[in-house]
Amino acid sequence: MKIVVDAMGGDHAPQAVIAGVVDALNEFAPSIALIGIRERIEGELKKYKFPASLLEIIHAPESIDMHEPATVSIRKKRNSSITLGIELLKKPGYDAFISAGNTGAVVAASSIYLGMIPGVERPGIGLVIPTLNKFSFIMDVGANTDPKPEHLLHYSQMATIYAREVLGIADPKVGLLNIGAEEGKGTDFEKETHKLLQEKVPNFFGNIEPNEVYFGKCACIICDGYVGNVLLKVSEGLLESASALIKREVGKDPLAMLGAFLMKTRLHNIKKLADYSEYGGAPLLGVNGIVMISHGRSNPKAIKNAIRAAAREVEHKIISRISSVVAPGS
Amino acid sequence: MKIVVDAMGGDHAPQAVIAGVVDALNEFAPSIALIGIRERIEGELKKYKFPASLLEIIHAPESIDMHEPATVSIRKKRNSSITLGIELLKKPGYDAFISAGNTGAVVAASSIYLGMIPGVERPGIGLVIPTLNKFSFIMDVGANTDPKPEHLLHYSQMATIYAREVLGIADPKVGLLNIGAEEGKGTDFEKETHKLLQEKVPNFFGNIEPNEVYFGKCACIICDGYVGNVLLKVSEGLLESASALIKREVGKDPLAMLGAFLMKTRLHNIKKLADYSEYGGAPLLGVNGIVMISHGRSNPKAIKNAIRAAAREVEHKIISRISSVVAPGS
Repeated sequence: MKIVVDAMGGDHAPQAVIAGVVDALNEFAPSIALIGIRERIEGELKKYKFPASLLEIIHAPESIDMHEPATVSIRKKRNSSITLGIELLKKPGYDAFISAGNTGAVVAASSIYLGMIPGVERPGIGLVIPTLNKFSFIMDVGANTDPKPEHLLHYSQMATIYAREVLGIADPKVGLLNIGAEEGKGTDFEKETHKLLQEKVPNFFGNIEPNEVYFGKCACIICDGYVGNVLLKVSEGLLESASALIKREVGKDPLAMLGAFLMKTRLHNIKKLADYSEYGGAPLLGVNGIVMISHGRSNPKAIKNAIRAAAREVEHKIISRISSVVAPGS
Repeated sequence: MKIVVDAMGGDHAPQAVIAGVVDALNEFAPSIALIGIRERIEGELKKYKFPASLLEIIHAPESIDMHEPATVSIRKKRNSSITLGIELLKKPGYDAFISAGNTGAVVAASSIYLGMIPGVERPGIGLVIPTLNKFSFIMDVGANTDPKPEHLLHYSQMATIYAREVLGIADPKVGLLNIGAEEGKGTDFEKETHKLLQEKVPNFFGNIEPNEVYFGKCACIICDGYVGNVLLKVSEGLLESASALIKREVGKDPLAMLGAFLMKTRLHNIKKLADYSEYGGAPLLGVNGIVMISHGRSNPKAIKNAIRAAAREVEHKIISRISSVVAPGS
């Protein structure tokens, strides 16, 4: 197995990416191909010790910035680390691709160069989120902002497989995000989707209201990519604002500062739970190859854990499992 | 001025509603008509002292439950406190209606019995949310889940008026909730809406990303009712889960419990900031009458503050102001 990692992707590339790759090489020794501007990769690698036989370096002269328009950059930069890295998956010996770079570009390049798993119409991005009951897997969080009910059926099937095989959840239930709990609630889209999932997804749980997302009622939560993206970003921003507010208030009062100090260890445990880097990247499911998108702000631990999750996808033959469930006749 | 209050609406009705009405009567002495089952209202009122001359009681024999389907209940229960209370606004002398009951029923009854302000096509629900920079007013949070760009134009105009007149914000800016910050981001709906707002809303700020909602970048945030509802409920659920998590962790450790105790006063200030009951109810804007929807969980303070906000709407002639901006020719 060899995992291709985009050395040029993310806000702290190539430093953070390469540090994470080195940690992975030293801790669980996967074979890795780092793709990007060779001299920058080699320069950075000089800082570290690692089993060199496990690492291949592949030169890609171009890189796509975080904010370039996705489809344009894919067409114009045929030699970017994202494009060349994804195309590698069509060659034997390269099993997965990870990038903390431009999400839109990774989605577009994966769809164009890998195509879809037969039976799947549109790719979706899944993400592990912490809940009161361990964690849940939410999909789609932004690849497909105007989906059809069939797309959400496929997301349900793919999320179930990912939760079982990669996250190790024995019997994952699938909830449909909806602004009402009862059957028959929501827009026409949700009503139709609810009916379809009830009919075709044996582990369907029913509707999940947005305020229940973090309660951990079911392992998989399915929604359209626009709403999923809003959900994710609102949560990020709310936690950020709330902690800024707490710091502001506590800073006014020495007694409260002492209090915060005494709570430190426990708050650290919570922070760890909410830390996306614990869960690795966000799998792009539905394309005909294993692709993992890491947060732009990825630190080395996030990259290392994304490599671990991608390796599990490879080991558990995620693509052929999805293929056999989505298009059982094929 | 007289404000009609639905005595039967909300999870803690009529007790919480009546307690809030009594507080309002004692604190700022508006004229109020309580509508609902007369003997229950009178029984409850026996507990309190208040200026009786300011209070009228109107009997409504039926009440609509929190989870009844809205349009059916409106048609079947013509003598409910919601239906009769809203119809009162067409009579002279009754200026605003407040209910903490079934939101869907209030929206449906208001649309049917009051009609729309000329020029406005669909009503929207606005809500004050706390931010790092005081508070913002977000609209729509659930009345219109499948809006057209024109509806969001009207929401922008109505939110601006509400922010200026009722919330006292001198120069409110309007942001469009969108999953990307740059112009040209988002779905076709957002792109089209962005263009329309840029053209027609002089105080348009541009796109606001979901993670920026609580930063307080602009006083008014406009979005479709589905997304607004998700945003609101996700935020509620996340704060609830986070505080449950903190309690769970802190409870494991006496030192952390002491720490939490020392922080109590400061955390209380934050709680107060995040407390919806400080801001009163959520105005239903666009219908041809002043209607305020309070949270189902409203406590007496929330009811009292909703009465105060409704009174400000009446004083500042919100309806005619909206009418002159939305349909300037009329």
